[in-house]
Amino acid sequence: MAISHLHCLQSVRVAFPCRPSVSNNYYYGRDNFTRKCSSLVYASTNNLNRDLHLQSKVETVLDSVKWDDRGLAVAIAQNVDTGAILMQGFANREAVATTVSSRKATFYSRSRSMLWTKGETSNNFINVHDIFLDCDRDSIIYLGKPDGPTCHTGSETCYYTPVFDLLENQQDKEDKLALTTLYSLESTIAQRKGELEVPQSGKPSWTRRLLLDEKLLCSKIREEADELCRTLEDNEDKPRAASEMADVLYHAMVLLALKDVKMEEVLDILRCRFSQSGIEEKRSRNSQA
Amino acid sequence: MAISHLHCLQSVRVAFPCRPSVSNNYYYGRDNFTRKCSSLVYASTNNLNRDLHLQSKVETVLDSVKWDDRGLAVAIAQNVDTGAILMQGFANREAVATTVSSRKATFYSRSRSMLWTKGETSNNFINVHDIFLDCDRDSIIYLGKPDGPTCHTGSETCYYTPVFDLLENQQDKEDKLALTTLYSLESTIAQRKGELEVPQSGKPSWTRRLLLDEKLLCSKIREEADELCRTLEDNEDKPRAASEMADVLYHAMVLLALKDVKMEEVLDILRCRFSQSGIEEKRSRNSQA
Repeated sequence: MAISHLHCLQSVRVAFPCRPSVSNNYYYGRDNFTRKCSSLVYASTNNLNRDLHLQSKVETVLDSVKWDDRGLAVAIAQNVDTGAILMQGFANREAVATTVSSRKATFYSRSRSMLWTKGETSNNFINVHDIFLDCDRDSIIYLGKPDGPTCHTGSETCYYTPVFDLLENQQDKEDKLALTTLYSLESTIAQRKGELEVPQSGKPSWTRRLLLDEKLLCSKIREEADELCRTLEDNEDKPRAASEMADVLYHAMVLLALKDVKMEEVLDILRCRFSQSGIEEKRSRNSQA
Repeated sequence: MAISHLHCLQSVRVAFPCRPSVSNNYYYGRDNFTRKCSSLVYASTNNLNRDLHLQSKVETVLDSVKWDDRGLAVAIAQNVDTGAILMQGFANREAVATTVSSRKATFYSRSRSMLWTKGETSNNFINVHDIFLDCDRDSIIYLGKPDGPTCHTGSETCYYTPVFDLLENQQDKEDKLALTTLYSLESTIAQRKGELEVPQSGKPSWTRRLLLDEKLLCSKIREEADELCRTLEDNEDKPRAASEMADVLYHAMVLLALKDVKMEEVLDILRCRFSQSGIEEKRSRNSQA
């Protein structure tokens, strides 16, 4: 692994950085010998020692990974805010080392027998905030923030083929992303919003009523927040608190749909506010002032 | 693949069932020939035809998977509510077919050269609600709800070794799960709650103040909910709405911490309420009555 892979490592250590810079192509080149040499010529002895120390540490971590007989481990890229599994590939030592230094999810292509950084063609990089190994040390999570759709098809993630739908001959339907509960709910609300112009017979759904009546929606949000508070004030039981929180979340998400705000944007804000220890409270206090 | 794998397939088709039954060991046995025969003897012709039809469909889906030279594909188990990646293994045709029929995440153990259902020893099954294939059809997500900790170490997931911490010689610290933003925030709030008994010098953090002062907390929740509503009523911009939602979520999560309620429990409720099309609105309307 080239030393040049490592000299930004110190700055890497922010577990959940906010809005990481997108354009950092310096570290992707496979032929960075010239850059390495020139950077080393000008590097101070301290920097050089630091680089060597870091390189040694990275090598130790890489030594601890149980690479398979092809020198590979499974690498899964996951959206740090939504939890969506974006894609899965394989990584060798160099791919992980490159990901550590560049903070762009990098894999080893088995078909092309070469490294590849997701986004090097599409510019839809996955900006890696943290990397996790599993208990057996043969599986890796790149936890990061994608710059755009991850799949080469333009889909947000590569997982959009639901097996149970295939078994029900629903393969002609639109692709369905593998959504977890919060985003499945968000998707349902968005669907209802998209149907607002379509006349409907019978009693309108509750979501439809909320979407059509802002006054009703806002009164419900205030009411549910009040009921959540009363679970604490009146010492109500846990299931009641969970249920009231579910009400708050659902009604607030209907409002977000009307404002065209995604939960991912909300979580992005929360990550930026709370991810850096110590800064959390100060920012929050300032915002209360 | 045994036909007996398939005869519960019709009931499988609820994309996000609520609280699936835990004890369904019938389909795990590798030697179910006798059961298969006896069930077939009593099966009606209709059932038999349906089973054969389903078997044929499953075979078609399995044919579409790009199995590697060992007949395997990567299989990733993900928590349907939290999005946490629980574990990663490999699956062959039989493992996927068994997962489809039993709804328990089933893998192929490369070391033991046999099928294994996660939980068959520990009882911590992963109840699979949906299965997704990726764009290349060589990677699989088992989206499900775990009965308990997934890792053999007792950890909630197998991914608790953060590489950047290792590089900073923090490997002596407690294991750190690969948490996405919402659960990272939940973990931070829980940590603050755990520190309440510890005397602190200087100005207390905002989270600490909220945890210690229920009146302040509830007034903040009501205030933030009101401010979220006003982004709609006063036609404020999107970033403002996202920011107010972040405030609502954070303050409500502090209340949940005081009530010992996990976000996962809230999402479980939301999934049960909203996952089944049509039932969504009715339940919600009933609860408004």
